[in-house]
Amino acid sequence: MTSATLNIPDLIRQKRDGEAHSRAELEALVLGYTRGDVPDYQLSAWLMAVYLRGMTEQETADLTLVMADSGDRMDLAGLPRTVDKHSTGGVGDKTSLILTPMLAALGLTVAKMSGRGLAHTGGTIDKLESIPGWTSELPEERFIAQARDIGLSLVGQSKDLAPADGKLYALRDVTATVDCLPLIASSIMSKKLASGAHTVVLDVKVGAGAFMRTLDDGRALARAMVDIGTRAGRQVRAVLTDMDTPLGHMAGNSLEVLEALATLRGEGPHDLTELCVALAVEALAAQGEDEAAAAERARQTLQDGSALAKFRAFVAAQGGDASYVDDPGKFDVAPGRADVTAPVAGFVQRIDALSVGRAVLALGGGRERKGEAIDHGVGVELLRKPGEAVQAGEAVLRIYHRDSRGLDVARALLESGLSIGANAPAPDPLILDRVN
Amino acid sequence: MTSATLNIPDLIRQKRDGEAHSRAELEALVLGYTRGDVPDYQLSAWLMAVYLRGMTEQETADLTLVMADSGDRMDLAGLPRTVDKHSTGGVGDKTSLILTPMLAALGLTVAKMSGRGLAHTGGTIDKLESIPGWTSELPEERFIAQARDIGLSLVGQSKDLAPADGKLYALRDVTATVDCLPLIASSIMSKKLASGAHTVVLDVKVGAGAFMRTLDDGRALARAMVDIGTRAGRQVRAVLTDMDTPLGHMAGNSLEVLEALATLRGEGPHDLTELCVALAVEALAAQGEDEAAAAERARQTLQDGSALAKFRAFVAAQGGDASYVDDPGKFDVAPGRADVTAPVAGFVQRIDALSVGRAVLALGGGRERKGEAIDHGVGVELLRKPGEAVQAGEAVLRIYHRDSRGLDVARALLESGLSIGANAPAPDPLILDRVN
Repeated sequence: MTSATLNIPDLIRQKRDGEAHSRAELEALVLGYTRGDVPDYQLSAWLMAVYLRGMTEQETADLTLVMADSGDRMDLAGLPRTVDKHSTGGVGDKTSLILTPMLAALGLTVAKMSGRGLAHTGGTIDKLESIPGWTSELPEERFIAQARDIGLSLVGQSKDLAPADGKLYALRDVTATVDCLPLIASSIMSKKLASGAHTVVLDVKVGAGAFMRTLDDGRALARAMVDIGTRAGRQVRAVLTDMDTPLGHMAGNSLEVLEALATLRGEGPHDLTELCVALAVEALAAQGEDEAAAAERARQTLQDGSALAKFRAFVAAQGGDASYVDDPGKFDVAPGRADVTAPVAGFVQRIDALSVGRAVLALGGGRERKGEAIDHGVGVELLRKPGEAVQAGEAVLRIYHRDSRGLDVARALLESGLSIGANAPAPDPLILDRVN
Repeated sequence: MTSATLNIPDLIRQKRDGEAHSRAELEALVLGYTRGDVPDYQLSAWLMAVYLRGMTEQETADLTLVMADSGDRMDLAGLPRTVDKHSTGGVGDKTSLILTPMLAALGLTVAKMSGRGLAHTGGTIDKLESIPGWTSELPEERFIAQARDIGLSLVGQSKDLAPADGKLYALRDVTATVDCLPLIASSIMSKKLASGAHTVVLDVKVGAGAFMRTLDDGRALARAMVDIGTRAGRQVRAVLTDMDTPLGHMAGNSLEVLEALATLRGEGPHDLTELCVALAVEALAAQGEDEAAAAERARQTLQDGSALAKFRAFVAAQGGDASYVDDPGKFDVAPGRADVTAPVAGFVQRIDALSVGRAVLALGGGRERKGEAIDHGVGVELLRKPGEAVQAGEAVLRIYHRDSRGLDVARALLESGLSIGANAPAPDPLILDRVN
C-alpha cells in the first residue's frame, strides 16, 4: 500500500488494538504529519496508543529510519573510521570535550554535530564558546576537510537532520508521551543515523537526575538503541553511567572547559577520566580492537599530550584563540565567590545533580528558552564529592557568581540538594553496565 | 484545585497511568476544550488514554454531568411524570412514533427532543415531516404548554444541549476513540440529562447492524447508562433488543409512519408492538407501577384508540394535517416498485439491517451529510421476515423508488444482505434482556 491510500484513523485503531505497523504505515503517519497532511490531533492519539501499547523492535527500527530519512543526511562516507557519541543528558557532563580529541588522537574520525544547552543541562557548543573566537558554524566542505585533516570537527546542527523527530518531539512534550522507550530510542537514533557516523557510542545516564530512573530502564533503552543501530548496519555500543551526582567537580561553561583541559593533561578527576577512557574503549572495540589494549592506548592519549594536541588544533581550526588551551588563567571566570558549607560534621551522602544544574541556570550560566544569551563565567564547584568526610562549617560547594545575580536561589538549591550523614555511604560505581 | 491551576499534560499523564480523575479535573479537560483553551491534540491524547485505561463508574458519571452542564438545560420541573426515550440507533426503528403517544395515553408526559437521520439510520423528525404542515420548531413556552395539555410534544434540538459532547464526539470520530464504553455512555446520557426528563427508557440495540455487537457489550453499556442516571438522581431503565433485522416491515419515512399508524390502531407487526409495550412497561415500572398491570394497560392503549388519539392531537398541535392520521392513502409513497426475490426455495435466514438502511439511503430516503433534502416517499418493505418459508422466485423485499433513482444500488445491497437456507433458523428473540 502506498501512503496515499492509507486511512489514518485505521492506523490509529491498529496501534490502539496492539497491532504492529509496517514501514509504509509509519511513513504515512510520521511523514504525513511532518508534511502537515496528518493533523496533530490524530498523531497525538496515535502517540498515546504507542505509549500504552508499545512497539516491536522492528517497528522501532523502522520508525527510526523513517525519521532519519525525513530530511537531510550528513555524508561522511569519504571519512575513515567515523565515530559519533551521544549522552542522554547530565549535569557537569564535559565528556565530549575530552573524549572527541582522545578519539582523534587514537586515529578515529569525529565529524560531529552538537547542541546548545537548555534548562539545567549544558551543551557542548556553549562550553566551547568560552574560548574567544571559536565558532560552531563551518561550511560543510570545511567541516569534512577539517575532520579529515585533524580527525575532529564539531558544529551546531546546521542541516535539517531528522525534522520529523523535531516535530514529533514537540508534540510528545505537550501530550505526556515523552518517556516512552521506543519513542526515546528512535528519537535519539534517528539523529545519529542522519548524522552519518559508522560507529556510535552512547552514554546512557541513570539516576535521580536522569531521564532513566532505574538501571533496568536504562538497560532497556540502551538495548533498544543498540538494536536499532545494528538493524541499520551501524556499530552501536552503550555504557550505562550513574547520574545522581554531577560528573567531575565543575558545572558551568568556562569551569567545565578548564576541567576538561586538566583532564586532557592527565590531571582530571578520577570519575571523569575513567568515563572518557571507557567510552573510548567502546569506540575502539566497535572497530574490532582488543579491549585491554584499547584501554591502555586511550589512557596514553591523556598522558602523552596527544589528545590535548588534537584539542588545540581543533580549537585553532575553528577560529578559537589556542593560547587559552595552554593558559587556563585567560578564561573569564566570574569573580564572585560564595560557599555552601556542611551544617554538621559527617560524610557527604549526596550532591543532587539536578540542584547543581538548576543553580548554574539561576546564576545565568544556562538558558530557559532557546536563543537566550548566557554567562560563560558562572558556575558551581564541588569541593567535596559523595563519600568524602567533612567538618561542620567546612565548604562543600563553591558558587562562582557575577554581581550576586541568582546567588540566593543558587544557594537555596544547593543547600537543598546536599545531604550529610554520620556514616560513609556505600561507594557508588560510575559505570554501571555496558550494552553492545 | 480550580481548573485554572490544573496542568493539562499532568492530567493526561494521570489517565495514561490509569489513575482516576476528579470532577474538577474532568471540567478542566472537557470544558477547557469546549472553550478552546485546551488544544485538540491534547484532548485526543487524553481520549486515547481513556480508551485504553478506562474510567471508573464515578468518573463516567462525573464526565456525563460535566458535559450535561456545558450548555443549556431544558427545565421540565413543572411537568408531571416526565419520560424520555433513547435508542442507540437502528434501521426501520419507528418505535418513538408509537411509544410516545402510548406514554401520553398512560398519563405520563413526554416533552422530547429528537434528531434527524444521518447515513443509514433514520430520524424521528424526518419521519414526522411526512405529514404535511407538521413542524419540529416550537417556541419553548409552547413546547412546555403542549406537553402539559396533551402529554406529548416533540421538537428538534433547538437549544444548545451538551455542546461539549458534540465537540468531543467530532474529535473521537477522527481519532479511533468512538467505540469506548464510558465515552459512549456519557455521550448519550449527557444529552438525556440536559433534556430534563425524570425517567429515561433506553433501547440498547445489539447485533450486526448495531454499535454493540454482542449481548455482553450491550449489557455493559446499558449498565453504565443506568448507573450514570441513578447517580444523577434519575430513573433509568434499559431494554436490550436484537438489531440484526430491521424492526417491523417498513424502512423509509412515509412507509414507517404508515406502519406506526397501523400499530397505533392495534394492527401492527408483532415485534414492533411487543417492543413498544416492553418500553412502556419500563417507563411505568420506573414510576413504581406493577409490571403485569402496566403491560395490560400499555397494550390497552393500542386497542382502545387512546394512543392513536394522542398522536392525532399531537400532530394537529404541531401544525400537521391530522386527516393523514386517519387516511393512510393520503401519504406520498413513491410510485415505483421493484421486488427482490428468493433465488431458491427455503427459509429466510437473514435480512441484514445495515443493507436495508443503506438501500433506503441510496434511494434518496436518507442523507449523507447534514442539511441535505430527503425523499420521504421511498423505502423498502420486508414482505417476509427471517424464519419465514419462501418459494424460489417469490418476492421477499419490495423497493419503493422514484424515477429509478438509486434502484440498482438498492437492489444490489438488498440482494447481498438477504440469505435463504434449507432449514428454518432458530427463532431469534427480539427482547434479549433488561437492565435497571
